[in-house]
Amino acid sequence: MIDDKTIFQRGEAIESRLRQLGDVSDTPGVPGIWRGMMSDADFRAKSLVRTWMEEAGLAVREDCFGNIYGRLEGQVSETILTGSHVDTVKDGGLYDGACGVVTAIEAVGALVKAGWKPYYSVEVVGFEEEEGSRFDLSYPGSHVIVGKLAEEELNICDEKGVCLKTLMEELGYDPKELPQADRRGQVKEFMELHVEQGAVLDREGLSVGLVENITGMMNFDVTISGEQNHAGATPMYLRKDPMVKMAEVILKATEAVKAISPTGVITFGEMELHPGLKNVIPGSVHCIIDLRDGNGPALLEEQAAVEAILEEACADGFGVEYRSYSYEPPVPMNSQLVDALEECAREAEIPYKRMNSGAGHDSMIIAWEIPTCMIFVPSVDGISHSPKEYTRPEDLSRGCEVLGRMLMKRADERTQPDR
Amino acid sequence: MIDDKTIFQRGEAIESRLRQLGDVSDTPGVPGIWRGMMSDADFRAKSLVRTWMEEAGLAVREDCFGNIYGRLEGQVSETILTGSHVDTVKDGGLYDGACGVVTAIEAVGALVKAGWKPYYSVEVVGFEEEEGSRFDLSYPGSHVIVGKLAEEELNICDEKGVCLKTLMEELGYDPKELPQADRRGQVKEFMELHVEQGAVLDREGLSVGLVENITGMMNFDVTISGEQNHAGATPMYLRKDPMVKMAEVILKATEAVKAISPTGVITFGEMELHPGLKNVIPGSVHCIIDLRDGNGPALLEEQAAVEAILEEACADGFGVEYRSYSYEPPVPMNSQLVDALEECAREAEIPYKRMNSGAGHDSMIIAWEIPTCMIFVPSVDGISHSPKEYTRPEDLSRGCEVLGRMLMKRADERTQPDR
Repeated sequence: MIDDKTIFQRGEAIESRLRQLGDVSDTPGVPGIWRGMMSDADFRAKSLVRTWMEEAGLAVREDCFGNIYGRLEGQVSETILTGSHVDTVKDGGLYDGACGVVTAIEAVGALVKAGWKPYYSVEVVGFEEEEGSRFDLSYPGSHVIVGKLAEEELNICDEKGVCLKTLMEELGYDPKELPQADRRGQVKEFMELHVEQGAVLDREGLSVGLVENITGMMNFDVTISGEQNHAGATPMYLRKDPMVKMAEVILKATEAVKAISPTGVITFGEMELHPGLKNVIPGSVHCIIDLRDGNGPALLEEQAAVEAILEEACADGFGVEYRSYSYEPPVPMNSQLVDALEECAREAEIPYKRMNSGAGHDSMIIAWEIPTCMIFVPSVDGISHSPKEYTRPEDLSRGCEVLGRMLMKRADERTQPDR
Repeated sequence: MIDDKTIFQRGEAIESRLRQLGDVSDTPGVPGIWRGMMSDADFRAKSLVRTWMEEAGLAVREDCFGNIYGRLEGQVSETILTGSHVDTVKDGGLYDGACGVVTAIEAVGALVKAGWKPYYSVEVVGFEEEEGSRFDLSYPGSHVIVGKLAEEELNICDEKGVCLKTLMEELGYDPKELPQADRRGQVKEFMELHVEQGAVLDREGLSVGLVENITGMMNFDVTISGEQNHAGATPMYLRKDPMVKMAEVILKATEAVKAISPTGVITFGEMELHPGLKNVIPGSVHCIIDLRDGNGPALLEEQAAVEAILEEACADGFGVEYRSYSYEPPVPMNSQLVDALEECAREAEIPYKRMNSGAGHDSMIIAWEIPTCMIFVPSVDGISHSPKEYTRPEDLSRGCEVLGRMLMKRADERTQPDR
């Protein structure tokens, strides 16, 4: 038993390492960073992670997909896994993903230094390409470890036409080894620390969030077509301006989701006008709608409301084409693990809250196969996917302590959570 | 006097010549044509125009800027000028510009053939680079003929870095002769036939539009800033989504312009979301607003309304930056000439309408210095700046007749319109 919990007061060390990782970007010289899969920055970042894992006393290896692992051998080979992802979105910040990897290394490192000998083996993982920012894949790194990434999916190309499979082979990663990268049966539990990416904890002055459900989501690919015409020569009464119609859809759908559920969110983050010239009424407007809710039935009700608004938009001679895709139902975290996290937070007297995650995470993929839980630390002002994202060192320390206590609790105990 | 007005039934001849010109493009092999200033296609097109002018009995010359003239000498040297532009937009069609040049040649040619001896001299002009599609200049050809193009403006380069002044000199066009290209004092009146580029005539089944005002316009460069955040993790009550705010602005500004004036038009044709990712609430949305009205006071009232809506959008913590630019007041056509055009249309029993032009034209530049009027012929479905633009031969005939009658009326009469 490690009694001195001050060993987890690693907030400043975590911040310092996050800054070092933040200097590693495929877009140097701009505030926002980007680390895409198997890019130069990805390798430099994982080289730092490897060094830190080794310094923490962990045995480091990569799987065939580039997921990096640092292992502390226990009395049995069955493993408690913790970590998050090393990659970032484009124009991203220091905390999303990296925070969970670095905090896990610090927590395990502190335990090793204190002479910890766990019963179960413990591993820290840094996943590849959680954001799908280079290759348009959904959480491929975590799909790999639960045996759900098919080799055919590697035939995807990035924006420059680089094929993932070819790239992997050139860099010495063998796609044929995907079956060996499947960790089911070896990994007993997974726990991920991550920034909240919302402002709930920050606004409520809490240091830790314990995730109960990861939000369900779906996207809509929407194109509204009108009549492309000269912006000066077409009177308002003769126009079919799809941008005006899209504006109506945005406002109506926003109001509808708000009315249905307090946990529902809708976003219109990607929009293209064709031809996109200031003096031409667009012929069509294309938009991707992102709809999420941690409440499954509410999500389906919201879907129906959005679809009704899109159908209604067909009136007055507009063409509206849409399809929903990427439907993911809400994913519950393992309730026994969430209870255990709550015990840790209480014991440490750290102010916490049970909440839903509005973002998707590798945990969402893993939870279907392996008992999983998530710890959130606050995002100041809720800012994420931005160079401005920030989490205070004192909150990093508290997150580290909850994770450290949880690792002790779970890796020392010879228990199995309900499956 | 020429009594037989059937001489102006030249629609099919006009269409045939427009097709010949349409084969002359700097982008052969694609449906959309392009003739930029002093390009290979420009010279080939003007060579056709020169041939047709000569066949019509006109004495042809070019000024130092490449504007091409065909002259019929009258009893006095004072001149009635008619024509339009030879150049096209990129990805353009057969009618915009060329239609006014070819129709003018046909009308004057028919009169010459019928033995016409006008009192005033008559010239047909083909202007250079009205669209500014190769060199980013506003109506330079017509600026030249009213003494308003400064030699320094010729230092502009095209996309490939070719300097206009150097190009002119290499091709034997002497920039020093710009003062001699100024036709003020020689040209008594100018009349331009052009396609409407809107759907008003087509929808109302009219053959001719008589332009009262060329629309005034301005642009607004608008950026609405909110809070860039994760699309899933930010509850609706904590969001500042600038796309939702922009949607409000679009609907409010559209309604405001409609309420102020039936001739006002507003377009949001260019919009960029930053970062423009489906799973990120945009941090900012940038838009160019195009606002036009042929009614000057209404345009200013609309400007104030749009600005008030933008100011109001600053509430709730949004940042709104905007500037208006490219303000051009409406340009009235010479009312005595518009009345004369109306007489011609009535005499010919051609269904017409007085209307505004929503697009800018060379006439807009010339009208400040020389009494000017414009005749519109219908654009089928209002399509313009597209390879699909089309005007029916019967409407070309009717436009030709109104222009021919007008030339007779004005070149035979020893009158001066009000200045």
